[in-house]
Amino acid sequence: MKIVECVPNFSEGRDIDKIERIMSVVKTNAFIRLINYESDADYNRTVVTLVGEPDKMVDLILDLTKICLQEIDLNHHSGEHARMGAIDVIPFIPISDISMAECVALSEQCARRINEKYDIPVFLYAEAAKKPERELLPNIRKGEFEGMKTKIQESEWKPDFGKPEIHPTFGTVAVGARDFLIAYNIDLATEDENPAKQIAKAIRKSSGGFQYIQAGPVYLENRKHTQVTMNILNYKKNPIYRIFETVRMEAKQYQVEVTGAEIVGLIPKDALIRSLKYYYKSQKIAFPENISFEMIVEDARKYLLFRDFNETKIIDYFL
Amino acid sequence: MKIVECVPNFSEGRDIDKIERIMSVVKTNAFIRLINYESDADYNRTVVTLVGEPDKMVDLILDLTKICLQEIDLNHHSGEHARMGAIDVIPFIPISDISMAECVALSEQCARRINEKYDIPVFLYAEAAKKPERELLPNIRKGEFEGMKTKIQESEWKPDFGKPEIHPTFGTVAVGARDFLIAYNIDLATEDENPAKQIAKAIRKSSGGFQYIQAGPVYLENRKHTQVTMNILNYKKNPIYRIFETVRMEAKQYQVEVTGAEIVGLIPKDALIRSLKYYYKSQKIAFPENISFEMIVEDARKYLLFRDFNETKIIDYFL
Repeated sequence: MKIVECVPNFSEGRDIDKIERIMSVVKTNAFIRLINYESDADYNRTVVTLVGEPDKMVDLILDLTKICLQEIDLNHHSGEHARMGAIDVIPFIPISDISMAECVALSEQCARRINEKYDIPVFLYAEAAKKPERELLPNIRKGEFEGMKTKIQESEWKPDFGKPEIHPTFGTVAVGARDFLIAYNIDLATEDENPAKQIAKAIRKSSGGFQYIQAGPVYLENRKHTQVTMNILNYKKNPIYRIFETVRMEAKQYQVEVTGAEIVGLIPKDALIRSLKYYYKSQKIAFPENISFEMIVEDARKYLLFRDFNETKIIDYFL
Repeated sequence: MKIVECVPNFSEGRDIDKIERIMSVVKTNAFIRLINYESDADYNRTVVTLVGEPDKMVDLILDLTKICLQEIDLNHHSGEHARMGAIDVIPFIPISDISMAECVALSEQCARRINEKYDIPVFLYAEAAKKPERELLPNIRKGEFEGMKTKIQESEWKPDFGKPEIHPTFGTVAVGARDFLIAYNIDLATEDENPAKQIAKAIRKSSGGFQYIQAGPVYLENRKHTQVTMNILNYKKNPIYRIFETVRMEAKQYQVEVTGAEIVGLIPKDALIRSLKYYYKSQKIAFPENISFEMIVEDARKYLLFRDFNETKIIDYFL
């Protein structure tokens, strides 16, 4: 069964009643699983995490667009987070049995339907971008709701769907496809920040390391040790085991032990399976065919030293 | 003492007498060490490897330009290798106690002197490039000697030094600075090419690996095993030990042993020291202050499994 994740961000994070009226559309949907939603009052923005079948997902996004159109008027919106639309951004993320190309096609279909039904101009971004300068959302969004009124009329900022004119209350929205981002931290049993700093430099893209790794050092005041804190932007090309084993190898020269690791937020089952297979293969053990969530959690603790980890951190567990 | 490497390529690879007349300028120079020179008849081109002090190097390059101007007429030159000048390219490479910025400055000084003394137009390339489209030599050289006659008159291909007109017999030359490139191969004790292929994919830039690694699989008919064959484009950011240990880690899942490694051509002492330090530090052994070439070779065999390796593979040995 094809499963896609979608993480729409809408521009209301303060008015609880309004947020709940918007979320009721999601909560009453029988087909799509709501993983969680988080509102930030300073940002005045809510981030919703959804998983389910591709077609049902697009249907729900259309419903969500309708309710946001009714509830939100960007002419009366302010917050610390940049925004250009009542729904600001809609990324589709492959989770299971679905390719990036399919997610790009899905985002195009979603964009077309939003435009046709509600006359909202739509930009395609990330993997769905039609021009390199539209790959990064901040490039598109620069100027925000207020600036988009004129920016959208410039020939190079013509929307991918719709006429070059923002919706008077909704604004405009970016729809696209991207890979799942894993927030991953590795514990180093030292209070000295230097090893974490040197190791982060060794593995991250910006200083010559792996292509899809962002990394930095951090000291955890409460836990009294340091971490290499990371984003894995593509877990297929930079699997967790490779990062974990490389960090372990680098740590040796500082006589520092790697004592644990953690996932912040969620992780796809596929990302865990890919990495656990490395350890099974290295020991010449056949990988269990229908491995249970319980077993995955146990193995992740054993081989990847995951702490504070259980089934509810695995997206697929909710399906 | 500041030491720079320079690898001028001149456009004669067939006429032995002519090659020797040109090389006599290098061979009789008291200050610069000739590491080797290799002529290729098909390419009709000779590659010269020189090391020495920066100022003396530029002086020698000026002498080399003079003799090539006398001996080579590109109007009567053909060969399989693309070329645009009697000397086609002059890269400066930091070896010891010299920064990339200094090598860029050196290449600019060399370019200016070539132009002033012989009225040859010069392009700056690689790290010395003034525009992104001049970073890669093939971009500049496209059209070759014949096409440069008109290409150099286009506003975007104006030379960095000199008037927009090629020298009638010499043509034009690219001068620049780049890092030392290490050609490095790791032996896998298997005839199956798949592990080498998968491991190359894991570590090389083009498929998500380390930023400065080019890699591919190869089967060695004579030795009856495969290799991961690599170029390390920046050994400071992607040190040998990191690549070696990552390959070892990846090989485990295929139950394949890493049995050796080799350097093709030369390697700077600095590149070896940086990697050997990892193994000393990991064992908490102090690194010997004035380590001998003999000891470096012994350690490289022991820790990095180098085979067919001796002092004459280390550039600094010749100084």
